[in-house]
Amino acid sequence: MALTPEQARQLAFEELTKAGIVITEEEKQRMEVTDFGLGMLEKIGLQVVIYVNNDRYCAKELYMLPGQICPEHRHPPFDSNPGKQETFRCRKGTVYLYVEGEPTPNPKGKVPEGMEGVFNVWHEIVLKPGEQYTLAPNTLHWFQAGPEGAIVSEFSSSSRDRFDIFTAKTEREIVDEF
Amino acid sequence: MALTPEQARQLAFEELTKAGIVITEEEKQRMEVTDFGLGMLEKIGLQVVIYVNNDRYCAKELYMLPGQICPEHRHPPFDSNPGKQETFRCRKGTVYLYVEGEPTPNPKGKVPEGMEGVFNVWHEIVLKPGEQYTLAPNTLHWFQAGPEGAIVSEFSSSSRDRFDIFTAKTEREIVDEF
Repeated sequence: MALTPEQARQLAFEELTKAGIVITEEEKQRMEVTDFGLGMLEKIGLQVVIYVNNDRYCAKELYMLPGQICPEHRHPPFDSNPGKQETFRCRKGTVYLYVEGEPTPNPKGKVPEGMEGVFNVWHEIVLKPGEQYTLAPNTLHWFQAGPEGAIVSEFSSSSRDRFDIFTAKTEREIVDEF
Repeated sequence: MALTPEQARQLAFEELTKAGIVITEEEKQRMEVTDFGLGMLEKIGLQVVIYVNNDRYCAKELYMLPGQICPEHRHPPFDSNPGKQETFRCRKGTVYLYVEGEPTPNPKGKVPEGMEGVFNVWHEIVLKPGEQYTLAPNTLHWFQAGPEGAIVSEFSSSSRDRFDIFTAKTEREIVDEF
C-alpha cells in the first residue's frame, strides 16, 4: 500500500529524530512532502524541512525514503540573480547525485520504468555521510537515495521553487517563498 | 590544566561524533580553534567546522565547550554588502544568545571577571535543540554555551571574518576567506 504524505512526514520525523536531528513540532507540521505531481511519492518525491529561507541564503534538511528520487531539474538565472547555487551534504545513508558531464558507466541510480526520457544527466557523484558537493547555478541535476534512505543538508543561496525548471512535467506546491 | 587547541579540536570532534554529526578527517584537521587572542580558550573561544563558504552563502558547525563564550561582535556593511546575516540553530545543549535590546534581568550568561566592559548587550535569547534565531546584519551580539556545552549550526550569507568588529581587542586567524 502506498505511503500517504502524512505517513511520509511521520517517517521522516522519526528518521531525523533517530539521527539526532531535532526539529520542532511546528517544523514537523510544515514539513514539505511532495511527489512533484507525479503520483508515485515513494519512487519520486521528497520530504523537506526548511530551516531558513530569506533573500540571502537558505538551509534545508531533506529526508529521502530508500531509493526515492528528486527528479531532474535546474535553477535558472532570474533578474540579476545567476540562479540558485546549492551544496548538498550527506548526513546519513548514501546519495547518488547526477549532474551534467561524462555519463558514468553502470550508474547506481535506477529510474522508474517509462521515465527514462526525463533523466538526461548521468555523471554520478556518490555522497556518503560527511561528504558534500556544490552545484553551480543552472546545472541540470537529479539525485536518488541509496537502499537505506538518506538525510541530506542543503545549504544554498535563496530558494525560489517556482523558478525551477524540471525535465518532467511536474507540479509542486510553492512552500518556500519569502 | 588548560586545554590546548589540539585537545579542544579532538574534544569537538568527539562531541560532534557522539551527536551523530559526521565530519571528514580533512574537516577535522582544518577545524578552526580560536581563543580570539584572549588567552583563555576554555572561557572565550570557539571550535568551528566550515562546511562551505562562497560569495553567496556559508554554513558552519560550531562546537562550544561548557560555558564557552563567543565574544561580542558585529558584522558591518562593506562595499554593496549590508553585512553578514546569520541564523544560529541549536543542535545540542543550550545556547544563551545576547543581542541589542532591553537587557534581560538575571541573565544566564556569565562573563569572566574583569571582562564586563566588553560585553554590552544583554537582551537574552535562549536556544534549545531545534530552536534557532536569525540576526540582522550589523547587530551587536555574543553567545555562551550552557553547562553541557553546545553544538550550533550557523547558516549565513558569505562569511568574511576579517571585517568583523569585536568589542574586546581580539585577534583571530583568518580561515574563511574564499
